[in-house]
Order: sequence, then C-alpha cells, then structure tokens
Amino acid sequence: MKEGAFRSVDFRNDRVVILDQTRLPREETYLEFSTWQEVARAISEMKVRGAPAIGLAAAFGVVLAAKDTLDPRAEVRRALEGLSRTRPTAVNLFRALARMEQVALAVDETSLYPALLKEAWAMVQEQTEADRRIGELGAELIPSGAKVLTHCNAGGLATYALGTALGIIKTAHRQGKGVFVWVDETRPLLQGARLTAWELQKEGIPYAIICDGMAGHLMSRREVDAVVVGADRIAANGDTANKIGTYTLAVLADRHRVPFYVAAPLSTMDPATGSGEHIPIEEREPSEVLSFMGVEMAPAGSQAFNPAFDVTPAELIAAIVTEAGVIRPPLDKGIEQIFKGEVI
Amino acid sequence: MKEGAFRSVDFRNDRVVILDQTRLPREETYLEFSTWQEVARAISEMKVRGAPAIGLAAAFGVVLAAKDTLDPRAEVRRALEGLSRTRPTAVNLFRALARMEQVALAVDETSLYPALLKEAWAMVQEQTEADRRIGELGAELIPSGAKVLTHCNAGGLATYALGTALGIIKTAHRQGKGVFVWVDETRPLLQGARLTAWELQKEGIPYAIICDGMAGHLMSRREVDAVVVGADRIAANGDTANKIGTYTLAVLADRHRVPFYVAAPLSTMDPATGSGEHIPIEEREPSEVLSFMGVEMAPAGSQAFNPAFDVTPAELIAAIVTEAGVIRPPLDKGIEQIFKGEVI
Repeated sequence: MKEGAFRSVDFRNDRVVILDQTRLPREETYLEFSTWQEVARAISEMKVRGAPAIGLAAAFGVVLAAKDTLDPRAEVRRALEGLSRTRPTAVNLFRALARMEQVALAVDETSLYPALLKEAWAMVQEQTEADRRIGELGAELIPSGAKVLTHCNAGGLATYALGTALGIIKTAHRQGKGVFVWVDETRPLLQGARLTAWELQKEGIPYAIICDGMAGHLMSRREVDAVVVGADRIAANGDTANKIGTYTLAVLADRHRVPFYVAAPLSTMDPATGSGEHIPIEEREPSEVLSFMGVEMAPAGSQAFNPAFDVTPAELIAAIVTEAGVIRPPLDKGIEQIFKGEVI
Repeated sequence: MKEGAFRSVDFRNDRVVILDQTRLPREETYLEFSTWQEVARAISEMKVRGAPAIGLAAAFGVVLAAKDTLDPRAEVRRALEGLSRTRPTAVNLFRALARMEQVALAVDETSLYPALLKEAWAMVQEQTEADRRIGELGAELIPSGAKVLTHCNAGGLATYALGTALGIIKTAHRQGKGVFVWVDETRPLLQGARLTAWELQKEGIPYAIICDGMAGHLMSRREVDAVVVGADRIAANGDTANKIGTYTLAVLADRHRVPFYVAAPLSTMDPATGSGEHIPIEEREPSEVLSFMGVEMAPAGSQAFNPAFDVTPAELIAAIVTEAGVIRPPLDKGIEQIFKGEVI
C-alpha cells in the first residue's frame, strides 16, 4: 500500500485483515482473524461496515471456513449461515454469500479453498473497478466549485478502493473541480465525523463537519449544491435504504431543489425486493443512542430507539450512479434495463 | 421546592442561583453568583439556557449590579450593556433588559435595587402564568394517546415553571391523555437527551430518545402525531428561530401532514423584526460539534460549522401557542392582533 493508503478488508497469510473502523480516527489498527466466527463478530460490531465492504469481509470469512477445518464443506455451510445473520439490511452481504455458495457447490472438496479464495478476490476486483467507474460517471454530475453534502461514510472504508459517494467526490477533486464537502456527523456512530472526515483529510479535500440537524439550515442558505450518498439496498423501484438520516436529507433536498444522488455498485441492487417497504431495517442497541465512546449522556433508565437505516423513496432521487451507467428517473425502468444488460 | 422540583433561575440572599444545565443529568448543581459578570458568563456558557430563562437570569443579573456597588446607576448601565452581548438570537434577553432599563430610568438611586428586584420577580410571575396558560391551551391540541416529538428543551429548565412545549406535554399527561414523547437528542449540546429526558423522567412521562436524523424515519412509519417545539424569537410574520434542527422537523412534518406547533410566551415575539431572514443566528465554537460530551471524535484539524439556531418559515407552522391564545395561520395577522390586545 502507498503511504496514507488503507484497506478496509484484506486477506493475507490465510487471515482476514480488517481495519478496525470503531477505533478510527484515533487509531489505525488492523485486526487479523483466522476463523469465520471472528469475521462475523467484526461485521456485527461494525468493525467493518459499509455495504460493499461487508460483502467482501463475509466472502473472505467463508474462505476461512474452508482452510484447515475438519469437514470443510460442512464448515462452509455453517459460515454461510452464520455470516448471513450478522446484519440484515445491506443486500451486498447476501449477494456475496450466494456467490460463495454457488462456487462451493460447483467444486469438489480439494478445490474448495482455492476456488472460494479466487471468487472472493474476483469480488474485490469487481468492486475496485465499480468504484473507479462510479467515480468517473458521478464526477460528471458535480459542477466546478460545488459544495457537496454527504452522510455517513460511503468511502474506501465502506468498499475497498475509492468508495462510492466519496469516490465521486474524490474523482471530482482529482479533476481539479475545487469541491468542498459538508460532512454530516451521522449519529449515533458518527461515521461522518470519524470516517468520512478521515478519508477527506487524507485526500486533502476541504470539508466541514456539521451535526445532522444542520443540513436544512445550510440548504435554506443555499450552501449545498448537491447531496451524494451511498446505499445499503436499492429495491426494484429505486427506493433506497441507507444510513438513518438519509431520508431526511432527501426530503430537504427536494424542498430546496438540490439534486440528491445515490452512488452504489450493482451488487447493492436487489431487484427481488419490489419496494422500500419490504427492505428489513436493522434495529440496533439503544446504548448506541444513549452514549458515545463510553460516555453516557442521558438519564439512567432512559429508553431509546435505534433504527440503523431508513428508506428514501425513488421519487426523491435525481439519479443512481452505478458502474453500468447513471440511472435517471423513472428509476424502476432504468434498474430493469440494467439487469437486462441494456446500455443506459 | 417540592422534592424533585427544580428552579432554572432563582434569587436568594442577594445572589442569583442557577441550576448548572451543562452538568445535567449527572449532577444537580446550583451555582450562586453575586456579580452580573458571573451571570453573563453563565448565559454565554449555556449554564442557563432557553429563551425565557435567559431573560430571567439577565434580569436578576441587572439586580446584582444595583446592590452594594459604588455607582449603582453606572453599574446597571454596564450590566445592561454586558448582558446584552451574551447571546444574540433569543429576543427574551433584550426584552427583559429593556424592561429593567425602563425601571432603572424611572426611579431614583435609593430605590434602584428594590425596584429592579421587584421587576425581575414580576417577570418570573408572568412567565409562570404564561407557562400554565400555554400548557392548558396547547394540551387541547394534543389527542389522547398521541406520540409527540419534541426538539431541544422547552421545559421548565428553559423557562421557570412548567415549560412551554414541555408544559403542553406535561399538562396533557396530567390530564390523563396517555402521551408518549419522542425526544430528539439535539446535537451538538444534547439538550434533548440530557435535559428534556430528565424533566420527562421526573414527571413519569414515557419517552424514547432518538438521534436527530431519525425523526424522518419515524414520520414515514406514522409514529409521530404532532411536533411541539419552543422558540427563541418569532418575527412579525410568524417565522420562528429555534434550536438548530427545528426547521428540518418542520419540513418533515409538512411532508407527512403531521401538525407542527410552536409554543412560546409573548416575550419571545419580536414584532419589530419583519421576517426570519432578519433574525441574527448565533454561531458557536466548532469544538461543540467536533467533540461529544468532552470526547473528541473527529480527526485533529477538522473544520466544523456550528449555527445554534435555524429559522422555520411561518408557512410550515400549524399554530403558535401563546399565553394570550392559539395563533393559527395566517400567523402575521394573528400576531398583529395579539399585540393590539385583541382576543384571538
């Protein structure tokens, strides 16, 4: 890796290597796992997060199940099952596991480990290429000097390479467009303030962090030219699940006629789910809302509600930027065409 | 005080007594000040906050300037000037200081202290009565079993007695309406999670804390029946400045046809300011955004933007509940009538 570069997920010396995102930006700690159970725990605990990165981590987790285990085929089955129960919303996880399962079914036991490893690396390759292409296509949507607002982290930490939403911003920056980024801090886990700010700082892109309740004020003052976010699952009609708070940004952008863009690889699309109401929304521990980094701020005994995602309806989305093209409304038609392999 | 009761501001033994809201809910610490400068600092540092409470604290601060000082009249002038520079947005501060100034100009030096003290207590009395009346009038707007969302803290901590927005909720609760409260945590200073939750817990009102980015999701799931917030300044046309994040709630409520109510005493109205664009919006230190309960989470060197308030346009407000009546749209007409003393 180049200096300053990082890898959300990697596989080295028969171990899954994960950059612990819960410790960023204070510490850049790489964790090494030799069992799929450890990888599953790291996904549940959000040491690795971001829809594409979760998919890649899970794929490498399955690889571990086939290495030096008593009954590799049975262990791979257990890994596929166990890893699928870590987080419910991002569809990349299930797509990655489905691909690994197909490979596992197609080869004999002696080929299991190398075949699975090859498939996991193929996914890394595809994601890297998807990031690059999304960055190029999306940068065309960003005017010179634009102030772009983003939410959560859809950067290299959430994928493998450039990132999706942040990939667009990085590409526009590298093209000399002079972009400025408003970074939603993204409570409860502060992926914006901790992770997106960290990536932007490494790239030398100017940014300012805001609290999630400030975006409306900025838009009312015409301080936002575009909103670009990632996605965890996109339904057949274009409804998009993404980090909690995204829907609010889309409603605000609609009111202020600010274009609202979603950036995501095809692996985030779920044509089998008709619309957003059928996307399962993960609910996490109330403690994430009631405290931060061990500091409790609410009165003892307080209740909290902690949905990790929300759904932005297709009607609020100006475009979905994928590696296969930019999908404009009507999104359902565009998504259908893409999965038929038609050029859009 | 009854057990469990509290006073945001008080005056005892020639001292201004302030409940330090920066330490709640962990510690219930009352600070005693014998100079107006200390009171001014407590207001700037938000040890006392909430538009009406700021006004009362400032009024008592002026009283201190007239007690045992070398040149009481000159010291009162300095106090009026110094206290006016503490915070720019809440108009109650300037209205309270204007009233104290009028009294100071009307009496001779020997009467200065008792006259100022009497005026400050008169304001407390008026606020107490306003809270009671706002609670009664506003409770009529809250259906039985309603789930009410509130932002920041517009409770007794922000006034003197019952509170404004929380006064409505408390009154509805005491009427046996079985209300449930969604408490926006209200970053950056977490007045919702820290202060509103604390007040609701004391009253035995069921609540759940959410992050500011979650309200949209709740509304899309029909989990919010009404939004009730306080105000820091209401312009002649009804545009309302309140804690940052309020505007976003109003936009979301509009989309989901959830009634959005503002609760405020007449002392929060500023008919001299035509519309929201003329309300000065306080910008506070970036450090409030970059850290969380004293824990820094963003990369060192990060920039942040920290507007303390935003403006909700009149068109998004279903009603303003004041002690003189419930103002319905068109708000500009209703506000004009109220200041002419007409019954509405």
